[in-house]
Amino acid sequence: MEYSKSKLSEEKVFKDPVHRYVHVRDRVIWDLIGTKEFQRLRRIRQLGTSFLTFHGAEHSRFNHSLGVYEIVRRIVDDVFPGRPGWDKEERLLSLCAALLHDLGHGPFSHSFEKVFHLDHENFTREIILGDTEVHAVLARVSADFPKKVSEVIAKTYDNTLVISLISSQIDADRMDYLQRDAYFTGVSYGHFDMERLLRVMRPREEQVVFKYSGMHAVEDYIMSRYQMYWQVYFHPVTRSAEVILTKILHRAKELHRNHYSFKHEPLHFYSLFQDQVTLEDYLKLDEAIILYYFQMWQEEEDAILKDLCHRFVNRHLFKYVEFDPAKEYRKHSELEKLFKEAGIDPDYYLVVDSSSDLPYDFYRPGEEEERLPIYLLMKNDELRELSRESDIVDAISGKRRTDHKLYFPADFIQDDSSEPAIKRQIRRILEI
Amino acid sequence: MEYSKSKLSEEKVFKDPVHRYVHVRDRVIWDLIGTKEFQRLRRIRQLGTSFLTFHGAEHSRFNHSLGVYEIVRRIVDDVFPGRPGWDKEERLLSLCAALLHDLGHGPFSHSFEKVFHLDHENFTREIILGDTEVHAVLARVSADFPKKVSEVIAKTYDNTLVISLISSQIDADRMDYLQRDAYFTGVSYGHFDMERLLRVMRPREEQVVFKYSGMHAVEDYIMSRYQMYWQVYFHPVTRSAEVILTKILHRAKELHRNHYSFKHEPLHFYSLFQDQVTLEDYLKLDEAIILYYFQMWQEEEDAILKDLCHRFVNRHLFKYVEFDPAKEYRKHSELEKLFKEAGIDPDYYLVVDSSSDLPYDFYRPGEEEERLPIYLLMKNDELRELSRESDIVDAISGKRRTDHKLYFPADFIQDDSSEPAIKRQIRRILEI
Amino acid sequence: MEYSKSKLSEEKVFKDPVHRYVHVRDRVIWDLIGTKEFQRLRRIRQLGTSFLTFHGAEHSRFNHSLGVYEIVRRIVDDVFPGRPGWDKEERLLSLCAALLHDLGHGPFSHSFEKVFHLDHENFTREIILGDTEVHAVLARVSADFPKKVSEVIAKTYDNTLVISLISSQIDADRMDYLQRDAYFTGVSYGHFDMERLLRVMRPREEQVVFKYSGMHAVEDYIMSRYQMYWQVYFHPVTRSAEVILTKILHRAKELHRNHYSFKHEPLHFYSLFQDQVTLEDYLKLDEAIILYYFQMWQEEEDAILKDLCHRFVNRHLFKYVEFDPAKEYRKHSELEKLFKEAGIDPDYYLVVDSSSDLPYDFYRPGEEEERLPIYLLMKNDELRELSRESDIVDAISGKRRTDHKLYFPADFIQDDSSEPAIKRQIRRILEI
Amino acid sequence: MEYSKSKLSEEKVFKDPVHRYVHVRDRVIWDLIGTKEFQRLRRIRQLGTSFLTFHGAEHSRFNHSLGVYEIVRRIVDDVFPGRPGWDKEERLLSLCAALLHDLGHGPFSHSFEKVFHLDHENFTREIILGDTEVHAVLARVSADFPKKVSEVIAKTYDNTLVISLISSQIDADRMDYLQRDAYFTGVSYGHFDMERLLRVMRPREEQVVFKYSGMHAVEDYIMSRYQMYWQVYFHPVTRSAEVILTKILHRAKELHRNHYSFKHEPLHFYSLFQDQVTLEDYLKLDEAIILYYFQMWQEEEDAILKDLCHRFVNRHLFKYVEFDPAKEYRKHSELEKLFKEAGIDPDYYLVVDSSSDLPYDFYRPGEEEERLPIYLLMKNDELRELSRESDIVDAISGKRRTDHKLYFPADFIQDDSSEPAIKRQIRRILEI
Repeated sequence: MEYSKSKLSEEKVFKDPVHRYVHVRDRVIWDLIGTKEFQRLRRIRQLGTSFLTFHGAEHSRFNHSLGVYEIVRRIVDDVFPGRPGWDKEERLLSLCAALLHDLGHGPFSHSFEKVFHLDHENFTREIILGDTEVHAVLARVSADFPKKVSEVIAKTYDNTLVISLISSQIDADRMDYLQRDAYFTGVSYGHFDMERLLRVMRPREEQVVFKYSGMHAVEDYIMSRYQMYWQVYFHPVTRSAEVILTKILHRAKELHRNHYSFKHEPLHFYSLFQDQVTLEDYLKLDEAIILYYFQMWQEEEDAILKDLCHRFVNRHLFKYVEFDPAKEYRKHSELEKLFKEAGIDPDYYLVVDSSSDLPYDFYRPGEEEERLPIYLLMKNDELRELSRESDIVDAISGKRRTDHKLYFPADFIQDDSSEPAIKRQIRRILEI
Repeated sequence: MEYSKSKLSEEKVFKDPVHRYVHVRDRVIWDLIGTKEFQRLRRIRQLGTSFLTFHGAEHSRFNHSLGVYEIVRRIVDDVFPGRPGWDKEERLLSLCAALLHDLGHGPFSHSFEKVFHLDHENFTREIILGDTEVHAVLARVSADFPKKVSEVIAKTYDNTLVISLISSQIDADRMDYLQRDAYFTGVSYGHFDMERLLRVMRPREEQVVFKYSGMHAVEDYIMSRYQMYWQVYFHPVTRSAEVILTKILHRAKELHRNHYSFKHEPLHFYSLFQDQVTLEDYLKLDEAIILYYFQMWQEEEDAILKDLCHRFVNRHLFKYVEFDPAKEYRKHSELEKLFKEAGIDPDYYLVVDSSSDLPYDFYRPGEEEERLPIYLLMKNDELRELSRESDIVDAISGKRRTDHKLYFPADFIQDDSSEPAIKRQIRRILEI
Repeated sequence: MEYSKSKLSEEKVFKDPVHRYVHVRDRVIWDLIGTKEFQRLRRIRQLGTSFLTFHGAEHSRFNHSLGVYEIVRRIVDDVFPGRPGWDKEERLLSLCAALLHDLGHGPFSHSFEKVFHLDHENFTREIILGDTEVHAVLARVSADFPKKVSEVIAKTYDNTLVISLISSQIDADRMDYLQRDAYFTGVSYGHFDMERLLRVMRPREEQVVFKYSGMHAVEDYIMSRYQMYWQVYFHPVTRSAEVILTKILHRAKELHRNHYSFKHEPLHFYSLFQDQVTLEDYLKLDEAIILYYFQMWQEEEDAILKDLCHRFVNRHLFKYVEFDPAKEYRKHSELEKLFKEAGIDPDYYLVVDSSSDLPYDFYRPGEEEERLPIYLLMKNDELRELSRESDIVDAISGKRRTDHKLYFPADFIQDDSSEPAIKRQIRRILEI
Repeated sequence: MEYSKSKLSEEKVFKDPVHRYVHVRDRVIWDLIGTKEFQRLRRIRQLGTSFLTFHGAEHSRFNHSLGVYEIVRRIVDDVFPGRPGWDKEERLLSLCAALLHDLGHGPFSHSFEKVFHLDHENFTREIILGDTEVHAVLARVSADFPKKVSEVIAKTYDNTLVISLISSQIDADRMDYLQRDAYFTGVSYGHFDMERLLRVMRPREEQVVFKYSGMHAVEDYIMSRYQMYWQVYFHPVTRSAEVILTKILHRAKELHRNHYSFKHEPLHFYSLFQDQVTLEDYLKLDEAIILYYFQMWQEEEDAILKDLCHRFVNRHLFKYVEFDPAKEYRKHSELEKLFKEAGIDPDYYLVVDSSSDLPYDFYRPGEEEERLPIYLLMKNDELRELSRESDIVDAISGKRRTDHKLYFPADFIQDDSSEPAIKRQIRRILEI
């Protein structure tokens, strides 16, 4: 039988705390899950440093990737079949793109990307198109199948309906992670009626739309998303750990540039330091590797690297205060000066971090972030943009919220064994 | 104020998916949580290799330790106060013992203990009594406090009621892990009415007992425990991963004994190989470290070490068949012979693994495992052993169940590129 | 289009707390739900007097009937199609039988059946075969369809597989009520993994069987059932209310026999009193009607009827003590005598009530209650009776448990304004 | 011991699906629950006609009243003690007011109040102050205690903090019903983190306030409330049943005014018809009584009463279309005319029903509905009105949403056996 149509003799299931079971019938999907590139996602946490705030948030991207697949599977197997606008030939492509959409993520992606100028989306494409086990499986389907999967994930595929299943303001990716992250952190936000959303989803040529009767479930989803961003994803303790992690990477890179001799050689980091990472190098990285180095580096000579690694490993994080960069520019300069005088390098120990979110937006052509709006399917078959029907969504639509905080090591500043006068001044400014 | 009575100015809470919140008011507890020895538990999974079967089971021992503490906190703060038999001076000791009871666990404890002759209970004691941050905190309470905590965990403390809170057939340890492991794996077993159990718990001089009116909740707990053992803890896929992990450790040790030259030097393993592990060595171990080596060893020369590490990292596990060691002894010998002839070392690739559990037992003096029975407190204040009142518990009491399985690499045996005739014979015997 | 195949233009859903949604596509099912005989089930509580113990247990038989339908729908639409042994022509019949299986239940069935010699199964048959809206719908399918539905419910239909879906030791009826009653009472028993049970169900010529791999889910179901019986269904407070209700009916019947002149005429009861209930009379009964009379009868002259109704309406229930009818026969006679002397009629105020349950049984030919065993489908396609494979089920199989209690009005006996000496004696015997 | 301080020898618990357990230690509370006026709440559904839309919504006001009590109990026992602003002498008063706040509700209150000019708040006061079992219990506490309880419920008590526990924009009443109604209907709205809300509640002289750190939990509560209003409380099917119920009452009153001779005498209604209801009359009413009459009236001569009762009992409800009373006034007049011509009385069969909600409001002095705002307690101990801090709440604050629908019997209008031309015209206007 044709590989693309080949089914397992017996359905395989994964026990999943969020969707109860993840069901696999397609041999292609089963084979993809077994590849080493996909298994590697087990060693990368879904929420990076959040486990230091929410101790339950230790779940991996493997976990989430199966979940996104399962949601798309339900859509393409239970909701779309037989409806106009849906081309059933796109089924397997949709499933593969859902499963693999996060494949290029590395350990603590956000920090690594920033410091080493990486782009996980590029790696996703490279894994799918390169010399990998994943590529081999996809290529068995057809010669151009890997490219199609890659295009869906890169949002350049010409059937935008397929893209919208995994990349839009309401898609399987977000639906899974909101619920999953809520489950593992244990917060009571993140709940919405996914069953209902699936029931009211309809395929349209351009994108997925939602029957008007499900508008309240869509509203609820948007509110959940909003709460999860501010309660979980932007939690200041998580940001504090992220700040330290970023500074560790900066410091290691800086030391390397200055020909510092590491006690424990950073073999896995050389190509990163030189901005010359190959796919092979990249695939060797995972959180176990990174944590291994951080632990070893607790014994380095360099005081900053050593201290920051110690902080990360043992969760001695930075404290924070609210900070308004627009109004408090001078305060920041003054603190920088005082930190230097106190012998605390402000480049590593005085950090402004900002979080910003736009809960929903309709389409604003020409703006930086063009976001496809959510459409409601009215009884007369007309489409209407969500915020025109929903008072609540209208109220928050397009309203960006940004928070800034200033992070610093409170223990250093409270340690009066050196420079007590300067530190007193710092404390007065920080009001701690 | 006395350190042992010192309270935080504001209660701290941890969001916990199982107990909703873990509450900390005591400074001693807060300080213990912040020690590096306790934070290290974040890097050790509660269920070892189970995450390869249940992808949600990525939660750490840190997670569980807080949970046990929270259950004991509810008992000593909400249930016991004011009841005869309870000495409120034991409160802090109970809380510390609960929090620290698993402190000595290392990465994949079960396998490491077997191969390297370690004992995590010894390490727990050493951490509590040795030169550690945990010891420093406990010693601030009083000079003999570390010893008392250690005795409670070692079950030698003279107030056996305190011991029974964390080590008996129904204790805070089991109550937490059954619920927690059920939550993170997503299985529907593991549920019982802990609220009710807490409500009917009563202190007695010897141990915790349960009011007769809560008997059904106790029964339910025992059934949950039984199901979790067979459905989760002894799951054959988990056992398969455990078998491979144990064999990796064996192989590395064997290679070291034979002066094999590792490409990637096993620095963290030397003292293990020589059965000379110090506390300092031990505390450096965690799952990140171990996984780091396993990944590096995928590139070793030694074919067996390389293959086994590859299997573990990429989840290419062994298959299994039921096996009765009593009746099928000859079959096993024959398979060993055939494996050797086929060039597959049976010491590493043909493994019998047994799981065995006794769901509940009353007291059988003189027997190998003397287990304290569960007592019901009758209306007339008499105590009666559970199985005398509960038909269901009586039915299963003392009935040990044991399962044996034979694990092997199905891919090797199905690969007919070498020794096809022998492999055919192996397959016939294994009925695969 | 043929009525039996007719589908609604759009699927209808009922929001259901247990199954999330109940889905209806078949016009026949939709029409049946709309009949007045089915709507009448809204006015009959699923758990009779249990709401006086568990205040959440106010759910109706309408609720449960939809649930049983939904479970069977999932079996015949998602699990059975395409499997040998399943005749898809039986689909609609299975759905209708599931929906209608409790149709003949009246208000507080158990008590009414006992006192007035009714049989709800007869009424179910009469409603299905008689001149009713339900019959009219079923007859539109085909002339013999009502008879077939009736036979499935009466367990005389020749396809025993269809019968086993709703009447066996593990069927859709039990699966729904255990979960539903647990949900509405709020108890933590009653949970089992129905998703898994549905996944491992297989049709066989004789009956539904379960794949061996699902054995633990079956065990869990049996334990849930056991706990629900003793924790909820046989709860002594519920039994106390049931005892009073039964005595009210007895008293009213007795008064009528004795030509007592009711202040409030029992129009709805006349045919009951005379054991001449027609279907028309029966269908007029529901719990609102009965409660109406009980409220009115609080103002009757007859002291016993008045008192019992007052007790039921205002939840002034009887107290109880354990009672062993075999050993304590004399005690009972003595109490009867003393009650009479104290002017408290023992026929109404001293009641022995017994509860008895057999958690599971294999087939014992010739015995009173022949129960079809649960079969496991082994890998070699052989069937094995559950208790031969499951240690736990074997341990409890065939073990009947019976509890007896003696119910009485404690307030009467504690009221020493009359016959204090006799009452003191009664209290001594009852140990209250 | 003083009655107000008297405790039960053993705590009593009610199993509750929402709060797990409701705990009672105070004898006063236990005695109140046992009164016949409180037990009567078992016979009045919390959500009136909603059970005809959501079949799980069969829970009673008894259910909810215990829940409100339990939330207040947690506040006054676990959260407030020891905090400035809280007078512990108000504890019992708060508990009693919480338990009894809905005591005066009758069957289907909304419709009854409208048609018969009743006010359930008056009845609550009358029950508490009149010659009732409830009054007797309260008066045992102290002579002025009934009056104080009554004042708290009537919002005239001078300690407004106590009032705010059960009557404010975020109080125990709303917190219970949102969760409870969500649980029993099974909808996925209505969830918010009550545990967190309770943790951040603080007593202030004027009212309960919430620590700033809990702002997101408050936001979530407000969104839940919004969704529950539109998804559950204002559900058009529920409104349809309510419309029919109101029209039944109108019709019966009208018939009585016109000296119609009822086949089944409406004994319980006479005082209602004459707007002369005494407390005694009122307490005899409950839903069983009302449903009894509706069933009997299905056999009345009057075609309208008979038809409407038949519709209500058998759930043959009115259909509806959107309707804008401002713009579609002429359409309505035309329909009225056509209905009359078709022989369908528009007074009973063409009904405009409006639902309107204000999700949150800050204080607008002088406006019709002065609502106390929700205050956040900032770190500097200042109070700030919620909408000034919360973007989301600000966005919806003060925005009233109103929906209007037109209800009518679609079956009548589709029945072309009489006046087919007129009915065709009606259908064209209604677009059905």
